[in-house]
Amino acid sequence: MSKEIVRTERTKIRRIPKRGSFERETIYKILDEAFVCHVGFTVDDQPFVIPTSYARIGDRLIIHGSSASRMMRTLGWEKPICVTVTLIDGLVLARSAFHHSMNYRSVVIFGKAKLISDEQEKIAALEALTEHIVPNRWPEIRPPNELELKATTVLSLPIEEASAKIRTGSPVDAEEDYDLEVWAGVIPLKVKAESSIADEKLKKEISIPAYISGYKRA
Amino acid sequence: MSKEIVRTERTKIRRIPKRGSFERETIYKILDEAFVCHVGFTVDDQPFVIPTSYARIGDRLIIHGSSASRMMRTLGWEKPICVTVTLIDGLVLARSAFHHSMNYRSVVIFGKAKLISDEQEKIAALEALTEHIVPNRWPEIRPPNELELKATTVLSLPIEEASAKIRTGSPVDAEEDYDLEVWAGVIPLKVKAESSIADEKLKKEISIPAYISGYKRA
Repeated sequence: MSKEIVRTERTKIRRIPKRGSFERETIYKILDEAFVCHVGFTVDDQPFVIPTSYARIGDRLIIHGSSASRMMRTLGWEKPICVTVTLIDGLVLARSAFHHSMNYRSVVIFGKAKLISDEQEKIAALEALTEHIVPNRWPEIRPPNELELKATTVLSLPIEEASAKIRTGSPVDAEEDYDLEVWAGVIPLKVKAESSIADEKLKKEISIPAYISGYKRA
Repeated sequence: MSKEIVRTERTKIRRIPKRGSFERETIYKILDEAFVCHVGFTVDDQPFVIPTSYARIGDRLIIHGSSASRMMRTLGWEKPICVTVTLIDGLVLARSAFHHSMNYRSVVIFGKAKLISDEQEKIAALEALTEHIVPNRWPEIRPPNELELKATTVLSLPIEEASAKIRTGSPVDAEEDYDLEVWAGVIPLKVKAESSIADEKLKKEISIPAYISGYKRA
């Protein structure tokens, strides 16, 4: 069974604590719907924030990148990092400027990433990354060869010190503003897949698989 | 006229430099389309990455938050920060696992944010934040009062040391993989607004303005 999420001063939800959660189920649902995270790390007192894809394997977050990249070289040193995942669900239009908001679901994870060096574990992590973003893709494609594996750094971050923050629903206005003649409500936002575009070098006889033509997030 | 973007060791595009840009026009186009950034800052060697909305006024990025929040209290100290904006345009499906990628447009800005304390400048910044996310909204809503202004910290980050990184188009496979019997191409992704949901407390006679019913990103 999963270890309990560690609650620390760093993951404490200071602003509007009722929006916070430390439940693995809540955190994992967000992590499993999104596929891009923003990784924060510090080099010589300068923070860097880099977007990258990720996958979850059990209680670990997997990220990967070129072995030559600044981020991968830095994170391999087991420095403290912060990984943030954000889903924007809607724009919340209140009657006053002050109470405008967004509906969102976000996760913040603190920790140190470990290098995955075992070859079989590394391949499994790359499979998880591909399958997280496009389920059913891995069995069809050419797996990484020795050189490609060497050129790819894969890191594993334990999901131990983490929290989720969620806002849903209508605007909440100041009592006296409900009388104003202003439209208020929510504009929902969704990430949608459009019709896929075949590579112009695609061989004519290859038809589009159902997992691509029917691709959906969430 | 805008000062030239400063190119530094930090904004150097190390991986695939042809995807990089230091043009203000390219950087601003991305900043003007997106509306959520991830702000990175460091407290006691621990990086934090927090999602928040933003606006651009000329050559400055504006962010705001509760005066009580950890981020706003920290950034007010003029510490080095990193602000990253990411738009995901599509999933790039190659014939090999290794060449899978994403189409994206991202901007990274390094610098120190300054507190906006002048009241008129602060209100103008809040107007820019609202109008950036929902154009035409500001003239309709109740503007912030004294207490609300006090409870809100607004920061301005000069866009001086910044870069954009962009990937577009088809997968690029290894020459020998083009013969494989694998579908390859791009699944485009778009953020779309769905039908707005009126607040249940909305007065019956208030109809939905065109800038909300016709809301679109980009």
